[in-house]
Amino acid sequence: MCDICVTQAVKERMLSRRSFFRGAAATAAGVAAGSVFQAPAALAQGHSAVEDLTHELHEGFPTFFGEQQFFFDQKFTYAKDKFNLAEFRVNEHTGTHIDAPLHFSADGMSVAEIPVGNLVVPLCIVDIAAKAEDNPDAQLTPDDLKAWIATHGEIPANACVAMHSGWGRHVATERFRNTGADDMGHYPGFHVEAAQMLLETQAGSIGVDTLSLDHGMSPDFATHYAWLPSGRFGIECLANLDKLPPVGATLVVGAPKHRGGTGGPARVIALI
Amino acid sequence: MCDICVTQAVKERMLSRRSFFRGAAATAAGVAAGSVFQAPAALAQGHSAVEDLTHELHEGFPTFFGEQQFFFDQKFTYAKDKFNLAEFRVNEHTGTHIDAPLHFSADGMSVAEIPVGNLVVPLCIVDIAAKAEDNPDAQLTPDDLKAWIATHGEIPANACVAMHSGWGRHVATERFRNTGADDMGHYPGFHVEAAQMLLETQAGSIGVDTLSLDHGMSPDFATHYAWLPSGRFGIECLANLDKLPPVGATLVVGAPKHRGGTGGPARVIALI
Ligand SMILES: [Zn+2]
Ligand SMILES: [Zn+2]
Repeated sequence: MCDICVTQAVKERMLSRRSFFRGAAATAAGVAAGSVFQAPAALAQGHSAVEDLTHELHEGFPTFFGEQQFFFDQKFTYAKDKFNLAEFRVNEHTGTHIDAPLHFSADGMSVAEIPVGNLVVPLCIVDIAAKAEDNPDAQLTPDDLKAWIATHGEIPANACVAMHSGWGRHVATERFRNTGADDMGHYPGFHVEAAQMLLETQAGSIGVDTLSLDHGMSPDFATHYAWLPSGRFGIECLANLDKLPPVGATLVVGAPKHRGGTGGPARVIALI
Repeated sequence: MCDICVTQAVKERMLSRRSFFRGAAATAAGVAAGSVFQAPAALAQGHSAVEDLTHELHEGFPTFFGEQQFFFDQKFTYAKDKFNLAEFRVNEHTGTHIDAPLHFSADGMSVAEIPVGNLVVPLCIVDIAAKAEDNPDAQLTPDDLKAWIATHGEIPANACVAMHSGWGRHVATERFRNTGADDMGHYPGFHVEAAQMLLETQAGSIGVDTLSLDHGMSPDFATHYAWLPSGRFGIECLANLDKLPPVGATLVVGAPKHRGGTGGPARVIALI
């Protein structure tokens, strides 16, 4: 067969999902094993460290409603097909993810419409871990914001204001959702009045290290309704906020960019 | 009903997918309409601009095999439910996306295992648009790399070396896949010898503005097999490479982070 015919044969086999890479096995076998690339890190100009604020997503990742929301479907395997490939299905509000304005508004911006400049922003971290340790129903309040501002200054333009409640470390245990005898989630969130106070600033987003912008006991998603229709976005299930300073880091929000999306799993990275 | 009972009722309705937000409609109606947030951009320290290298993903986005690979399923609508939410299903290799080492190796790193420091890297852009304009089967060759290095210096540690073929502007037309009378795709890619040459450098990834690291005519995915098993990754379907300098930008690769993933749709952002 000529090259074109080989390619056609390969592609037909791939499409029909049969083992298609036998012809390419020789190529694969030609790759030297064991010499895996390990380059030294080379950071962005002006930054000294990178921190990953993203939890690994998997089928057992905890969800707001407690039901599975991520489904992984391996379609091709290296052993049989000489390459690996999967499909996945996911509820947009799963894992470390974005809430776009459209999530809680009739016609707000979709996740694809958030300007890219709004995804590279100053990160302000408000630490309420001490009170959340004593009370899982604790909320980030206007007083917490006032104390932060008194110490660190005004909220910068476009900033993400993130609640550090200490909940990120519970992600692999029942404590993350913390379902009570009342069958409700018990975890911290933004008090609606704190969200309203931030609407008077130039903050562009709020973030939480829990399952919801609203605390688990919220009866009405008041914080979602106060915040998202204003054209600002949210980030839920942030990781590693304990590893960052209260001010000074730059957040890069690797939001997904699917048309009409109300949010979605995101890669969230801090540059320090 | 007390708050807890209201919340339970709301959640039960949400789970059963009936219109559940009637009780919250009053809250929603309380949000002032029309005053949408527009904060001035506030860039990361040391950077003057942000460029989005990500195409919008949608159900008609072109794919390697020509079949639909992204499926969007709206589950709740604001009109009926007072919030919007969707699920989506996607082949990992769709839209602007990552090829993790695991994609073309038996046990290489999954997309979740790529160290976050390898996702914030110098971006080197090799422009082959002129020859690709004349010949859609053009490849980025060792000579193209030598010319780049002669002008711009050595490839920095961990760099992403990206091919700018001009193909990004074709994404909405048949020209992107450019299927010929031979039923093959005709678009540029990395010549395997260029990939092999980069294996001798500290480059950590290669990127293309086309559907595949290998050019469309490739009979055997030689570039995928040469590059990915070395522990390096790839990026396909990059956008807006024409808006960046050949050297000096920092790439932030917002790769997805799902367990065992062979890659996936990514938000790719350049800081200039
Ligand atoms: Zn959400
Ligand atoms: Zn791919």
